[in-house]
Amino acid sequence: MMRSWVESANSADCPFPLNNLPYGVFSVGDSDEGRCGVAIGEMILDLTRLEEDGHISLGEHPVFDCESWNDFMELGADIWAEFRVWLIESLGEGSEKAVTFADYLVARADATMHLPLEVMEYTDFYAGKNHAFNVGSIFRGPENALPPNWLSIPIGYNGRASSVVVSGTDVRRPLGQLKGPNDDLPRFGASQRFDLELEFGAIVGRASDDMISVQQADDAIFGYVILNDWSARDIQAWEYQPLGPFQAKATATTISPWIVTKAALEPFRTSTPERERELLPYLREPGPMSYDIALEVALAPEGKAATTISRTNYDRLYYSAAQQLCHHTTSGCPMNVGDLLGSGTISGPTKDSRGSLLELSWSGQEPVKLDTGEERSFLEDGDTLTLRANARGDGYTIGFGDCVGKVLPANDIPDWAKE
Amino acid sequence: MMRSWVESANSADCPFPLNNLPYGVFSVGDSDEGRCGVAIGEMILDLTRLEEDGHISLGEHPVFDCESWNDFMELGADIWAEFRVWLIESLGEGSEKAVTFADYLVARADATMHLPLEVMEYTDFYAGKNHAFNVGSIFRGPENALPPNWLSIPIGYNGRASSVVVSGTDVRRPLGQLKGPNDDLPRFGASQRFDLELEFGAIVGRASDDMISVQQADDAIFGYVILNDWSARDIQAWEYQPLGPFQAKATATTISPWIVTKAALEPFRTSTPERERELLPYLREPGPMSYDIALEVALAPEGKAATTISRTNYDRLYYSAAQQLCHHTTSGCPMNVGDLLGSGTISGPTKDSRGSLLELSWSGQEPVKLDTGEERSFLEDGDTLTLRANARGDGYTIGFGDCVGKVLPANDIPDWAKE
Repeated sequence: MMRSWVESANSADCPFPLNNLPYGVFSVGDSDEGRCGVAIGEMILDLTRLEEDGHISLGEHPVFDCESWNDFMELGADIWAEFRVWLIESLGEGSEKAVTFADYLVARADATMHLPLEVMEYTDFYAGKNHAFNVGSIFRGPENALPPNWLSIPIGYNGRASSVVVSGTDVRRPLGQLKGPNDDLPRFGASQRFDLELEFGAIVGRASDDMISVQQADDAIFGYVILNDWSARDIQAWEYQPLGPFQAKATATTISPWIVTKAALEPFRTSTPERERELLPYLREPGPMSYDIALEVALAPEGKAATTISRTNYDRLYYSAAQQLCHHTTSGCPMNVGDLLGSGTISGPTKDSRGSLLELSWSGQEPVKLDTGEERSFLEDGDTLTLRANARGDGYTIGFGDCVGKVLPANDIPDWAKE
Repeated sequence: MMRSWVESANSADCPFPLNNLPYGVFSVGDSDEGRCGVAIGEMILDLTRLEEDGHISLGEHPVFDCESWNDFMELGADIWAEFRVWLIESLGEGSEKAVTFADYLVARADATMHLPLEVMEYTDFYAGKNHAFNVGSIFRGPENALPPNWLSIPIGYNGRASSVVVSGTDVRRPLGQLKGPNDDLPRFGASQRFDLELEFGAIVGRASDDMISVQQADDAIFGYVILNDWSARDIQAWEYQPLGPFQAKATATTISPWIVTKAALEPFRTSTPERERELLPYLREPGPMSYDIALEVALAPEGKAATTISRTNYDRLYYSAAQQLCHHTTSGCPMNVGDLLGSGTISGPTKDSRGSLLELSWSGQEPVKLDTGEERSFLEDGDTLTLRANARGDGYTIGFGDCVGKVLPANDIPDWAKE
């Protein structure tokens, strides 16, 4: 562990030691204007104010005067690396900057977190093999579980960037068209099978206009967040053929507030699982491009204690974010700084490592038992979900900040939409 | 027809009479900086310069100093209407502004057109029943052609906003994973079944956070463009199950350069086709929300004359753009100013009114004969496609400007992607 003059950063359990230095956007007090900051221990270093006061100068124009990290990402990987070195020096134990910079620290407990980036476009992948197999087994039986293309393509679809919200934002149960298997016709109502998906998000930090390799794709990734891809299973079941999920996934996608940089995760690099079918050359990884990051999901009914309902690891993903991004560019699709790539649900091989209630309750056949004595097949109003991620190093922890969302009851159906 | 002091606007065949007044972004001379303008006859009225010189003042801040119509759209429907009245007065025959404003006219022939809006997010629908039936028949046979949800939902999926380009932009044949029906495994190569889709685009001019009605959706639409949703059928066939089209549709989507406002299309309102299944109340239209607009597609091989390969009408769409937008908001999906909604391919009931080569050539079984003597099952390198739209009024025409794109050969496969 690297030690900081910010004492709270030096505990082995602290999610934000000097080794981490994740990037976020926060506000304090009455102002809701977002400022760029880096988390260190229990504090946030206010980079916007440091830049205003001339302690940071990364170019001709200010970089931290906007409410996102997009401008910083635009500066490119060399500046990402240089700035991280400067931060580690400035916040390291014994730094001569301690006296001055102490005035630029804000307590995390006093801060409200905002989206750390302007999400340009949002793509969601389906890169977890256990998840794809489980979902396929539920709907089509285990013999037809995995689609024929699954072992060849990191399957993805475009999501809705406007629906991405930061941790702590309440999520309203969606309305939509619902049709049960025995119904002749659909009806319009509130989703009864509202679910979470435990995912990670990779943030694209470099634009591209043409196809890039897996290595170039890895180089283009700026950092990672935890991501909950809220999903209305009943809306999805009726709408998704033939063009994929649409309104089932458009209510909200929650991300954790801190972008953990690729640099901070470097010690935790590991390989994706062994290939079960040889990949086409363009998708082969030149080195380890996954990460060993422990993940867990906790569910708390309204006013009650939380139960951890799933524990798994990021390294279960069959396709890395770099493979996903490479594939995304094959057709010439332009990628932009601020694009967000959801990993797909990260389920492990065992029942207690499944990343969605659809899988955990096996589509409602085996409801999940909570420590409170209650059961859950899908989410109920008032439930709060907390997704956590931790990479454990030698005497230190790299945390992401919780990814939290509470389910609000559906809106009343408007009069003009009633039957 | 309303008459203008810009004489070229007063011909019955002119696509841009005073009745139209479509909005675009253009540049002239060596500058590639886009300026906002309105088309009138053979000319463009330079609104950016008019605003700079104090002849237009729509609020505290300039509206036309950016390279898009997004800021103007943000002003809201009352200003849209007032500004149109002001333009009609200013450009109308006998206007006292003629002397001054004549200096702000630029010949369309001298202008380079840019994207008229910043596309925030792009959604593509599948709202043409003949198209859905044709495509379903080709892939699943006529008895299973229409998916069970099709008569209940305006089926849509999220597309890639970064791939939207303005008319005149060349389009490079995409690379991707291809697997023929008799192949065991996919290979990586250039699409051999590259196609067009004749569509319309509706531009969302008002943001919403909650579900809106069909009437509110119609009110929120700012205007329309022609849209060509380039599609790689072979990439799509292998990738699209279970989550829908992804790289097959990510190469490019071309739109025509002028936004024709809803106000200009008002005289052409007509109803969507008769419902074959009663819609849920929220999707019922309170009045006519389609338009009578003649559409055609011309294909010109490299260096040769064009053949018109399809003629159809916008009113063939089963679901209006207002119904599409309403459905888009059901789950609480936030919509933003500058969102673009593709209509889906607009095919008529007859063979010569089909809106894609997939349908026109019936998946290659019945190649289309061109006037040059050549045949086409799918697009060949060097082919130029021109999509046109015209609404014909009493002695005048509302045109959209051509939606043009030429197919360039695929890029060479990079060494690291070769087998």
